[in-house]
Amino acid sequence: MSAYQPRLDEVQFILHDVLQASHQIAQLPAFAEVDLDLMNQVLDEAGKFVAAEIAPLNRVGDEVGAQWRDGQVTMPPGFKEAYAAFWQAGWASLTTAPEDGGQGLPAVLDAVLYEWLCAANHGWTMAPGLLHGAYECIKHHASDALREAYLSKVGTGEWLATMCLTEPHAGSDLGRVRSKAVPQADGSYAIEGTKIFISGGEHDLTDNIVHLVLARLPDAPPGPKGLSLFLVPKFDREGQRSAVTCERIEEKMGIHGSPTCVMRFDGARGWLVGEVGRGLQAMFVMMNAARLHVALQGVGLLDAAWQKADAYAHERRQMRAPGSTEKEADLLIAHPAMRRTLETQRAWIDGGRVLAYRTGLALDQAKHHPEASAREAAQGWCALITPILKAAWTEQGFHGASACLQVFGGHGYVREWGIEQNVRDARIAMIYEGTNEIQANDLLIRKVLGDEGQAMRAMVASLMADPQASAARESLEVLLAATALCLEGRDHPEGLVRLHAVASDYLRLASLALLHWAWARIGTVMPAQARWTGPAQALHDWILPELPMRLALIAQQLKVPQAA
Amino acid sequence: MSAYQPRLDEVQFILHDVLQASHQIAQLPAFAEVDLDLMNQVLDEAGKFVAAEIAPLNRVGDEVGAQWRDGQVTMPPGFKEAYAAFWQAGWASLTTAPEDGGQGLPAVLDAVLYEWLCAANHGWTMAPGLLHGAYECIKHHASDALREAYLSKVGTGEWLATMCLTEPHAGSDLGRVRSKAVPQADGSYAIEGTKIFISGGEHDLTDNIVHLVLARLPDAPPGPKGLSLFLVPKFDREGQRSAVTCERIEEKMGIHGSPTCVMRFDGARGWLVGEVGRGLQAMFVMMNAARLHVALQGVGLLDAAWQKADAYAHERRQMRAPGSTEKEADLLIAHPAMRRTLETQRAWIDGGRVLAYRTGLALDQAKHHPEASAREAAQGWCALITPILKAAWTEQGFHGASACLQVFGGHGYVREWGIEQNVRDARIAMIYEGTNEIQANDLLIRKVLGDEGQAMRAMVASLMADPQASAARESLEVLLAATALCLEGRDHPEGLVRLHAVASDYLRLASLALLHWAWARIGTVMPAQARWTGPAQALHDWILPELPMRLALIAQQLKVPQAA
Repeated sequence: MSAYQPRLDEVQFILHDVLQASHQIAQLPAFAEVDLDLMNQVLDEAGKFVAAEIAPLNRVGDEVGAQWRDGQVTMPPGFKEAYAAFWQAGWASLTTAPEDGGQGLPAVLDAVLYEWLCAANHGWTMAPGLLHGAYECIKHHASDALREAYLSKVGTGEWLATMCLTEPHAGSDLGRVRSKAVPQADGSYAIEGTKIFISGGEHDLTDNIVHLVLARLPDAPPGPKGLSLFLVPKFDREGQRSAVTCERIEEKMGIHGSPTCVMRFDGARGWLVGEVGRGLQAMFVMMNAARLHVALQGVGLLDAAWQKADAYAHERRQMRAPGSTEKEADLLIAHPAMRRTLETQRAWIDGGRVLAYRTGLALDQAKHHPEASAREAAQGWCALITPILKAAWTEQGFHGASACLQVFGGHGYVREWGIEQNVRDARIAMIYEGTNEIQANDLLIRKVLGDEGQAMRAMVASLMADPQASAARESLEVLLAATALCLEGRDHPEGLVRLHAVASDYLRLASLALLHWAWARIGTVMPAQARWTGPAQALHDWILPELPMRLALIAQQLKVPQAA
Repeated sequence: MSAYQPRLDEVQFILHDVLQASHQIAQLPAFAEVDLDLMNQVLDEAGKFVAAEIAPLNRVGDEVGAQWRDGQVTMPPGFKEAYAAFWQAGWASLTTAPEDGGQGLPAVLDAVLYEWLCAANHGWTMAPGLLHGAYECIKHHASDALREAYLSKVGTGEWLATMCLTEPHAGSDLGRVRSKAVPQADGSYAIEGTKIFISGGEHDLTDNIVHLVLARLPDAPPGPKGLSLFLVPKFDREGQRSAVTCERIEEKMGIHGSPTCVMRFDGARGWLVGEVGRGLQAMFVMMNAARLHVALQGVGLLDAAWQKADAYAHERRQMRAPGSTEKEADLLIAHPAMRRTLETQRAWIDGGRVLAYRTGLALDQAKHHPEASAREAAQGWCALITPILKAAWTEQGFHGASACLQVFGGHGYVREWGIEQNVRDARIAMIYEGTNEIQANDLLIRKVLGDEGQAMRAMVASLMADPQASAARESLEVLLAATALCLEGRDHPEGLVRLHAVASDYLRLASLALLHWAWARIGTVMPAQARWTGPAQALHDWILPELPMRLALIAQQLKVPQAA
């Protein structure tokens, strides 16, 4: 098994040649000093760091895993040292504001960094994965006193953070959260309740852990509007250990290097973050960024699986390929089914990067563009594209990694080559940060039907106007047709139920149209090499035929029956 | 986590109401005493045995797994006792001939038994999984002396057996096998070489283990025609331990209860089975039966995953479903996406059973029907249907189990509910007994193109003539159209390469057409209950739209370019 190798050249091609990222960044005054050279330098260092420090720990993370004993969690060998190197080198604070101890670099660089980290070692990457969201949450919603105590610690990654949302009976449905927060005389709150699925709820990577906890005041109304957000440190400002305990960690299918904790709060001292009753809003401020990172986990794990399978297909000989002149056996890559698998996954990876990095740039624009209209347009892009990226690319991450496993035959099923770990690890990304079914409803029911399809039509129109992407015109028209069908489908007697049932088809169709757009962009600048022409052809041959099928399926469900 | 529950009523409905199995069996003189009551009695007992003895060991099999130490393999707690109960009760010898100590019952009953066993405990079921093939191999190819010593031991399951085919450089491509067999003065052979992926190569379930080993005589030609088959017992007839050692067992993604062994033969004493140079033929005699059982592993594991997800969807409440009047939250089953998932998998399970049990009946007919033409027709059905069933239903077993996992949200990813084990276990069935890519080539290149499509057209014609299945006519016509396209595709300048590339689409298309046929049959007898009407509608809404897509994809590849 060889460890994941970040490929700087491939990412640079997407960022610079396809997306002109440095030109986009140059329009944002906050990044006046960020030019192409600086971006490349940061990415070069990031790739080296990931390859040297993080990738080699992937297997030990899976095999040893995080270990719980008497409320303490010991991380796998090497994880602690790697994390210290990570935050001390400033990787945790890449996008943190300079006034909070950070480097103030664009979000798009962070997107690449986390894609590589996750490809190299998904389990380890869970640890810093929530830092940025916690930092933004504290920065924008916490009191001065809390910010003073916690902002730069979290912003630099010296302390890690958690998001304590889920409870045994409240998973996707956070409105059912029951944990209580009882006001105390000193202005703090006593937090009571049990949270599950808390990634990094306990560990030995940092001296302190900052928990952000959803709970209800005693007089709060039921449902989501009764939820408030509280900051509960593992150790308070006086160094006192809080009444929060890791009861156990889950045995999971994958990401064994990340402790998934059951956390019990026994009157733990916490402080309100943001307003009472607006806990979800405070927590979801960074949702688009978090979901983009999960989409990039799908891209990254698929690339990791692809690297292994591609290497194996170029060294393993089995049977003669059709038309072969080999005496005994051909390389696997000469077999059409194997080539198809590898090129198809490559089309998803490279196209996914175009869309995800463009969304990373949009996050930067939404925050820093001097013109309000540009900020709004970027925000609109993120709102529509993020659920599509999250659901479609995490699904492809899992299924594509499984397809790459198949290249190995029986060797893929054993630990030795490391590819079965990719498949196990990738499965979680379809579930967390909002299940893929939730993403589909968010896209179709809330965002598309919610504004009569206006934002979606506007986005498609802007993509169609892109002179570099005319090749994708037909697929984008299918997306418009599907959008129109869904809007009309509300008149169907079972419209609401059927729209929920086809939400995943609509999302998938949108992902295919966007993938086509991404490859149209790639097509205008790519070199005439099999590395790029192969996946471009695979898109046409093996992926896009699904587009009319999804449209037909949606039409069949939503066609309004004619009156007799 | 609840253990798998074999559902006698559901299997009886398919066997008797849909397939009239007892009428089919009544036409076979060998089974003159096998009537509907006896079949039901055997199945009733089988279900009880599986539920009581095998299903409860599924989790310990996964968690403890088979353990290797100094060449010895210890099976998980309870496995040895369960195996003793299994063979002593006669389950191992259900279809073994009475003269070899067996019960001489139809293969179709064995098919149901192994489906249930695998659904209940895939790892445990690997142990007896190769018995029947070894029994047939010894019965038809071994010398009298070998039969005398080994046939009834293997036929009753008192001793377990292995198939030692794969070597590190010879997986799908058995022609590359290098193990040597050097003739000895006493008529035996000294076997030398290393075999990998040997299921049950070593264990503590039985007093002896009978290895069937592919190897080459010193003067054998290269390639598959140089391979001969040898029987190497762990202990020979004098009780002497053979020079065959289990070097290690593999760490795998799943089926931890089955030791996957690396076996070293250091001049181990073996005896020729069948003719020199015809080892593959001797070993592949039972291939159709073995592949049918693997297809049923897919069906069984999918049913196991479905049982868990369906139960969870009927007890777990999250969020309000569209149009709901619930105050707080609905059951998951009320959510359209969840219902879609469960009904879609049910369509695959029940339709798969129709096809697999019919193929089980065909195995019985091919062996025992008094008329040669009927035997031939049954053999033809098996040859065409088996690769389709193996590939399509093991793929659905894995992907469908993953879809069922998704119903659990985050709880699906942790061990507690047992569903992630189903997903891990199910993955191997896409690989072993001929990878699914090999199945696709076997179907399209060897069987369909190999006889100009005659057998396929004849089979489709016979299904179209079935008055109970007229609803599937259109889908069967798509299968004919795809067959014609593939035959014409040989004229394409890149025909051979492209046919290999679309072989998996052709197989998938065939599976969809057959699934439609199976449900047309179900449709004529099923009760008007949601249990049956739901999956029937799901087939129409969510599965069959893929059929024209596969046809279009194949057409796009194989359309012969017009001369300018």
